[in-house]
Amino acid sequence: MTGSQSGRRFSRRVGEIEPFHVVEVLQRATELEAAGRDVVHLAAGEPDFATAAPIIAAGQASLGRGETAYSGAAGIPALREALSSFYASQYGLDISPSRIMITPGASGALLLLSALLVNPGEGMLMTDPGYPCNRHFLRLVEGEGQLVPVGADTRYQLNETLVAQHWRDNTVGVMVASPANPTGAVLSEDDLRGLSRAVRARKGYLVVDEIYHGLGYDAATPSVLQVDPDAFVINSFSKYFGMTGWRLGWLVAPEDAVAEMEKLAQNLFISMSTTAQHAALAGFEPATRDILEQRRDVFRQRRDFLVPAVAQLGFDVPLKPQGAFYIYADASRFTNDSQAFCLKLLEQHGVALTPGIDFGHHKAMQHLRFSYTTSLERLEIAVERLAGVLGESGGL
Amino acid sequence: MTGSQSGRRFSRRVGEIEPFHVVEVLQRATELEAAGRDVVHLAAGEPDFATAAPIIAAGQASLGRGETAYSGAAGIPALREALSSFYASQYGLDISPSRIMITPGASGALLLLSALLVNPGEGMLMTDPGYPCNRHFLRLVEGEGQLVPVGADTRYQLNETLVAQHWRDNTVGVMVASPANPTGAVLSEDDLRGLSRAVRARKGYLVVDEIYHGLGYDAATPSVLQVDPDAFVINSFSKYFGMTGWRLGWLVAPEDAVAEMEKLAQNLFISMSTTAQHAALAGFEPATRDILEQRRDVFRQRRDFLVPAVAQLGFDVPLKPQGAFYIYADASRFTNDSQAFCLKLLEQHGVALTPGIDFGHHKAMQHLRFSYTTSLERLEIAVERLAGVLGESGGL
Repeated sequence: MTGSQSGRRFSRRVGEIEPFHVVEVLQRATELEAAGRDVVHLAAGEPDFATAAPIIAAGQASLGRGETAYSGAAGIPALREALSSFYASQYGLDISPSRIMITPGASGALLLLSALLVNPGEGMLMTDPGYPCNRHFLRLVEGEGQLVPVGADTRYQLNETLVAQHWRDNTVGVMVASPANPTGAVLSEDDLRGLSRAVRARKGYLVVDEIYHGLGYDAATPSVLQVDPDAFVINSFSKYFGMTGWRLGWLVAPEDAVAEMEKLAQNLFISMSTTAQHAALAGFEPATRDILEQRRDVFRQRRDFLVPAVAQLGFDVPLKPQGAFYIYADASRFTNDSQAFCLKLLEQHGVALTPGIDFGHHKAMQHLRFSYTTSLERLEIAVERLAGVLGESGGL
Repeated sequence: MTGSQSGRRFSRRVGEIEPFHVVEVLQRATELEAAGRDVVHLAAGEPDFATAAPIIAAGQASLGRGETAYSGAAGIPALREALSSFYASQYGLDISPSRIMITPGASGALLLLSALLVNPGEGMLMTDPGYPCNRHFLRLVEGEGQLVPVGADTRYQLNETLVAQHWRDNTVGVMVASPANPTGAVLSEDDLRGLSRAVRARKGYLVVDEIYHGLGYDAATPSVLQVDPDAFVINSFSKYFGMTGWRLGWLVAPEDAVAEMEKLAQNLFISMSTTAQHAALAGFEPATRDILEQRRDVFRQRRDFLVPAVAQLGFDVPLKPQGAFYIYADASRFTNDSQAFCLKLLEQHGVALTPGIDFGHHKAMQHLRFSYTTSLERLEIAVERLAGVLGESGGL
């Protein structure tokens, strides 16, 4: 970690930000595939479907019209209005377009919120396990993710009691996700109400990552905005709308935060992808929604196959995931080193999984994440391959 | 600046990051145009041409192939290789693709470099006037832009002497641009060599923003990599390649910095626009380059018309801009409030300019930026309109 030019060290923060450990697994998978091996990919954090045809066609048409210039730091008005209508039809909420900012992926929204809300030395409570970038965004701005170990007893989520227990003098808010990555855990309206109460009582900020909304398989997935109009919501066109590679997200903020965030966005982004924004408009058309809903049903079928199958392999899945496309499986019967275990399963059996260490520290060495982002047929092959080894040896 | 939810104040950094003041001018221009007024736009920071047809076609084709997934934190290999070849053909440089990272605009490159190089309380020297976001990126990570007032005497650039004079204990490097925004000033090989010497002597980092490369109108515009292989280069597909709304840039870094930056990019961006990357490949085809070179010639013609015309209006333009598409004009004969002056010129004469206060503090109230990002015919109209008022009154 030394600058070649000067012998100067790179910044301290860089030394404290972790890479995606799964990349080592994916690189090895690529090597194996290049050597002719078949690998079943259960590690991806994105849908296996290409973007729906009407969205692609809208992107192509927009390019054909020469819409290639910057489009403003808050996003094109038509898309902010479309999202406002979406909140009305989907959640029965009246959200002014002025409170909706388009961002370069949910990543961009996380950057804006980290910059807006957290001073150096301050932090936000978040679950461990959870999406790892959340704490790294806070580290970027010299804040900290305050990780709260969670398990099946709280459905891998924070709640009023945990917030009360873990809130510190330097805590400024709570950041949760519903449905959550890697656990697929969903927060009910009551859950959200409890979190809102806990945060308001401490004069903090409540941030809810809703990027897997639309990919819920059981009960409804409520938005925090239904119970707390002052919460910050992070969302994305990546998952339900299937637009990962387009890099487009949005956030909903209280009215008085928007001007500050737009100022930040001018400086940090200038603009989002203009093509992606015009394309995303097609995501709200009925024909597209039909495709997206069908895809959601496919994910549900995969979940309903894979959850019991993974349990039968000997993993513990104490909470049936209700959303997203992940299963967070306790592998403690098999391993105390999730990364080594993933590499071994790949090497010996051609199945690529994500190690628990990519999601925090709490029991991370004993967990794996299965993504059901491949076809049922491929999921069946993966289960067969793993059944052989795990059934026989009880471990590696 | 109070959070509505809680009465909690937003972060201190947000209070210290400035908006783009020109946005007030642009919003007023939109209102005037909606009311039927004609406005000549000389405020834009982007080419007035739509992206070249072969690049658009390549983007459409990539979408047609369903290339819509994430594409990795460092960018697609084909584009990194194309840029490596570009450095060979354009500059005679041998830059390994592994040293080239694709970024979400030059903005993304600035974020990565700020995060990598600067600890809280540390700073980098930069010119005042200069691109305002540079110092705001450093502020984001609790560092600081250390502004060095520059004028025509040093061609609005830093040099070895200025670096020696302004280097402080907490300075870790120098960030310059060539061609520069807002001045169009270009650094020669000798200039770059001097800066490299000054920075190396202090064991610092040298960062050069080369996003206006390719838009040079007189002598060659050398890359810092020709004189210092350890420098960091920021570049972009926005300006010469005409892809502003696509949000695509790149950076070249010393070999040992790449893994650290890729780790940052995983966490901060996940991926760049996949469509934009496939489209950008077409930027290197001879047919596209012909279009881009023709556009460069058009910019040169506009510059050659506008620089003397602006001087004749009574502005002082002590340095003929050699690159980019800007003229930084001293308006001290007319005003001591560049923002109010811009609003007045717009309101009364239908010409939109950018106030000097968007580029720093040094004599910022007495300067304006003219962008020659509109046709010669429109430039002539703007000059006529301004001749009337400035010629008569000598001011407002």
